[in-house]
This record gives sequence, C-alpha cells and structure tokens, in this order.
Amino acid sequence: MNKSISLKSRPVGTPTLSNFEFKEVEKPQIKEGEVLLQLKFVSVDPYLRGRMSDAKSYIPPFELDKAISSGAIAEVVESKNDNYKVGDFVSGHLDWQEYQVSEGKNLLKVDGAQVSLSAYLGVLGMTGLTAYFGLSEIGKPKEGETIVVSGAAGAVGSVVGQIGKILGCRVIGIAGTDEKVEMLKSKFGFDEAINYNTTKDMQKAIAEASPDGVDVYFDNVGGEISDAVHANINRFGRVVVCGAISMYNATEVPMGPRVQGFLVKQSALMQGFIVGNYQEKFPEGMKQLVTWLQEGKLTYEETRVQGFDNIPNAFLQLFEGKNKGKMIVEI
Amino acid sequence: MNKSISLKSRPVGTPTLSNFEFKEVEKPQIKEGEVLLQLKFVSVDPYLRGRMSDAKSYIPPFELDKAISSGAIAEVVESKNDNYKVGDFVSGHLDWQEYQVSEGKNLLKVDGAQVSLSAYLGVLGMTGLTAYFGLSEIGKPKEGETIVVSGAAGAVGSVVGQIGKILGCRVIGIAGTDEKVEMLKSKFGFDEAINYNTTKDMQKAIAEASPDGVDVYFDNVGGEISDAVHANINRFGRVVVCGAISMYNATEVPMGPRVQGFLVKQSALMQGFIVGNYQEKFPEGMKQLVTWLQEGKLTYEETRVQGFDNIPNAFLQLFEGKNKGKMIVEI
Repeated sequence: MNKSISLKSRPVGTPTLSNFEFKEVEKPQIKEGEVLLQLKFVSVDPYLRGRMSDAKSYIPPFELDKAISSGAIAEVVESKNDNYKVGDFVSGHLDWQEYQVSEGKNLLKVDGAQVSLSAYLGVLGMTGLTAYFGLSEIGKPKEGETIVVSGAAGAVGSVVGQIGKILGCRVIGIAGTDEKVEMLKSKFGFDEAINYNTTKDMQKAIAEASPDGVDVYFDNVGGEISDAVHANINRFGRVVVCGAISMYNATEVPMGPRVQGFLVKQSALMQGFIVGNYQEKFPEGMKQLVTWLQEGKLTYEETRVQGFDNIPNAFLQLFEGKNKGKMIVEI
Repeated sequence: MNKSISLKSRPVGTPTLSNFEFKEVEKPQIKEGEVLLQLKFVSVDPYLRGRMSDAKSYIPPFELDKAISSGAIAEVVESKNDNYKVGDFVSGHLDWQEYQVSEGKNLLKVDGAQVSLSAYLGVLGMTGLTAYFGLSEIGKPKEGETIVVSGAAGAVGSVVGQIGKILGCRVIGIAGTDEKVEMLKSKFGFDEAINYNTTKDMQKAIAEASPDGVDVYFDNVGGEISDAVHANINRFGRVVVCGAISMYNATEVPMGPRVQGFLVKQSALMQGFIVGNYQEKFPEGMKQLVTWLQEGKLTYEETRVQGFDNIPNAFLQLFEGKNKGKMIVEI
C-alpha cells in the first residue's frame, strides 16, 4: 500500500480539499543506483499555491493528476546506491507519496542528533534561508535601524525577526492573533508586535511602534497591511517582497494604492526574490543559521499536523493563519 | 520694475493660473560680497508640482506668498563679489523673479560658447543627470538588454533612451503623440516608440516591441502605462521610478494593480530616487554627458516658451504633454 496525493483540479480562489485527489499506487521497485525513500516530514508552504495555478511563474505549475511535491524529509528504506544506506535521513524536494524512488541526486543527508529532523524544513531549510538571504541581500539592515516584519509568526517571519535582533535592530512584528503577538515578544524577542485583526488604524500603530520610522520592511503578506507599513517607510528604506499570502487566493488582480509616490518621495526600494536566487550562497547561509542555533541566539516554532492524509489540510490551514512558525506534517 | 511670481494658493488637483500671483517688487541693491542676477532661462519641471502641496516630501513645500524657485540661468549684471564679474552667466536654483541678489554660493558658472546656455537646465543639468544616474545606478542596463522608457519624449526620457542606445541596448519609448513617436525614432535613435494615446492594448504593444521582454523600465509617468510595462518585466528586471506625472494632480491616492505579484514572480526591483542622492557623483556624470554631447552621441530637444509672465503657463503645459524635450522659458 502506497498512498499518493495529486492535484485533481486547479483551485479558483481559496483551495479546498476537493482540489486534491488521494490515490493508492504501487510501491515502486528500485534499480541499480536508486534508493527507496519513505516520507517522514512534509513541508507545506504558501508558495505552493502559485504552482497550483497555471499562470506563468518562476517555477512550472504542478501537473494535474500527478503527485504534488514540496520540501520533505525521508528515510532511506532500501538502497542500491553507494552514497546512501538504509536508515539515512535525507532532505529534498519530494512527491507527496509515502514511498518513492530517487536516484539520490538533489538530496541532502540530514542528522537528527542535534536538532529535530523537521528543522531542516524550517529554520535550517528553505524558510530559514529565505529569511536569511531576503534580509541580508535585500533588506541590508544596519545596527540601530527599525525592521517591520509581516507574517511575523510564520516560518520565515519568525526567523527574520530574530536575525534582526541579532544584528542590533529594533524589530516590530505583525501577526493575526494575541497568542502569536505574545509569542513574538516572549519567545522570539521582538521589541513590539501588533495584532492586525484587533488594530483599527494599522498605519498609526506602526508609526507608534516605530518612533524612528521603518528602514526595512520584510513583507510576507502584501495587501492593506503592507500599505500601512509603506506609509511609514523612511528615506532610503527597503521593502523586501518575500511573499503576498493575502493575495494568493485572489481571483482578480488585487488593487491597492499605487506605490510610485512613496518610492520616489523616500528614494525607497521594493524588491521581490525567491530563495533559489541565492543557491550558490546556501552553504554560507546554512553555516550562519546553524551557528546561531547552536549559540542559542536563534530558536524556532513548529506547528505539527499528523498523518499523510492531512497534508492538504495542513496546506489549507496556512491561509487561515493556523500555524505558529513552520507548518510541518509528520507522517 | 522687477517682476516676481509667487504661490497664491496650493493647487487642489490640476494647477491653474489662479494658483499663481504676479507681483511687482523693488529691484534689490547688492552689498559687499553679493551679485545682482538677471534671469535669462527658467526650467519648469513636473516635480515642482510636489512642492506646491504641503504634504511631507523630500524637499520642503513652497511657502505661500513667497517667490517660487526652480533651476534657472541668469546673467550677472552687478557684482561686489570677486568670484563673479558682470556678464558672467550662472546656473542655480533661483527665484521666479527678474532681478535677484545672490551671495554667489551654489551657483555654477556656465559658458554658452559650445552649447546653448539653456542646455545647462536640461541635458547638462538636472534632467540630464537624472537620466544618467537613474539609469546607471538603478537600471544598470547591460549590453543587449531591452529598456522601456515612459515619458520618453520629455527632458529626462529622451536622454535615458539615448544613453541606452550608447550602451548597446534595445530601447522602446512611450509618448503621447505621433509627432513625438517620430522624433524618438528619427532624432533620438529609439528602436521602437509607442503612442499610448492611439494604442488600445499597451501591454500587447510593449510585448510586441520587446520580443525578449523588458529588462529595465525607466518610469516617468506611473499609472496604467506602467502597469502595462510591469506585465512585461523579465526575471531580475529593474524598474527605475523617476517620476509619476500621471499621478501628481490626483486628489486621492491613485489605485492600481498591486505590484507584489510581479515583483516576486520575476525577482524584480522597483526603486525610487531623486537626482540629489548622487550629488557627490555630479562631476563624473557631467563629464560623461559633455563627452557624449561633444562626440555627437547625445543630442537634445527643447520647447521654448517666451517671456517671464509665461513661466506658470509653461509649467501647466507640462501636464498636457505640450513639451518635446526640455521645457524652457526664455526671459
């Protein structure tokens, strides 16, 4: 028995369970040079929404009726490849399928002795690197500057805020529940945190939390929250456009205040990126994140959902903000 | 008799003549160390609209009932300053007043022997430097890349396009009349030019003119023209946000499609600037522009309006796109 999850139909607006198909497929046989992998942890991330539509983007869309894929940790359960032995754990971009064959390329061996294996999907994986490179390569915060982070309680945002503190900045987080706001301050060391669901005037709240204005805005959400931050951007401010979860399920192009005004007035920058742009620097980024983690300067939060069949549910919950930190499915 | 023009009231929406006041003031006397200047050429520029409102910006607003000021060329008609003699011509930020006193600071001596004196307000002045630094410092075009310029027939745009050609790029201009479109191609060497007033589907027209996509967009206008260019931006594209003339007279914040989507998808950049950011590099920029001008690689166009009393009219005509190249008032 080998379960697999594929895309049945392309979501229009907010995805639902009906967009996914649960199949049973044969457990595959491996050939010389291959390994058989058993999924252990699956990462679900907002960017996967983009791959479910067939609009042109930086990665090709998922194909209908084929297994969906994402970052995952698996155990090697059979091996005809000298580089891997049974019992090894690997991180890679894998199918949502319990057992799958790999030629061993593009897999990274991971070790659960020091940190949880799932950390390689979060703080030591794609989301940690996204935070690290987005902030260091685009945000370029200087000591004493003010950083605002939206989606601050998420996998990327919580790492961005902590790096900001390590670098000596004032850090303001924006999140959607009081519990998250509390976590940002007590667990992650943010200077201030704002609950956008209970704050009437976000522009004013950000201004009050940022008496010296906002030098770097690390944006994971887009939409009206971002409009409110833009209004507080300092001269030579930098807006790191990492994601726009508030816009991913829109069925029409979302409209908002045009940005040219504040960009010219403040000589400000907005720059989009994907973590893959910095692939050559991944080892450097990983080394820094591991060091901070070992020094106790960096911590992380996970929301774990149990069971292979719940991968789509966990994905859908991202859009309801159900996760604190990295959303992980444990198989 | 010494005429002066001041701001009578702050314009709401499109400025009109009624916002300006024509006064007669005394012809001033100079003291030791001062010079008396007589205005010769006055530069009117879209950015002055921003100074007429009292919204916070990168330069303080004009004060009501005080002379308006802008870039200008004047002749020294009396001098008690050893650095200037009668008959010298100077460029500086001067009042809209026929005769005015200066201590000689922040004035640049200019020589009309090689080029028209008014060129120091355009291709060899603020607008030329704006084109040069916006393109070189933010756009960073590489040989073979495609540059799109909006407001291409204006003072900045026409220089941007020519520099793009000097650097070996494909250059597409956007302008508002067939006459301007013709001038972009025949006089300034643009590869293609598009009349936005007669083109139904701008996004498609830009796509057709840019078979390899758009690497650099030098934006002088904002609004729907820019939306159409953004839709054609390549991966790692750069949008140089120089101005947004289509938005300057808006009475509410103009709305448009949110930009986060294309910024992330294309890992693209939008950056606003003002030429003053590069003040330390002005000598380098001037040297390059003069060299290109002398080599015949760079040319320029002027629209001249005659007479001191017509300064406000010339300014108002900018928003109707009446100018080709630099708008200059000759006193």
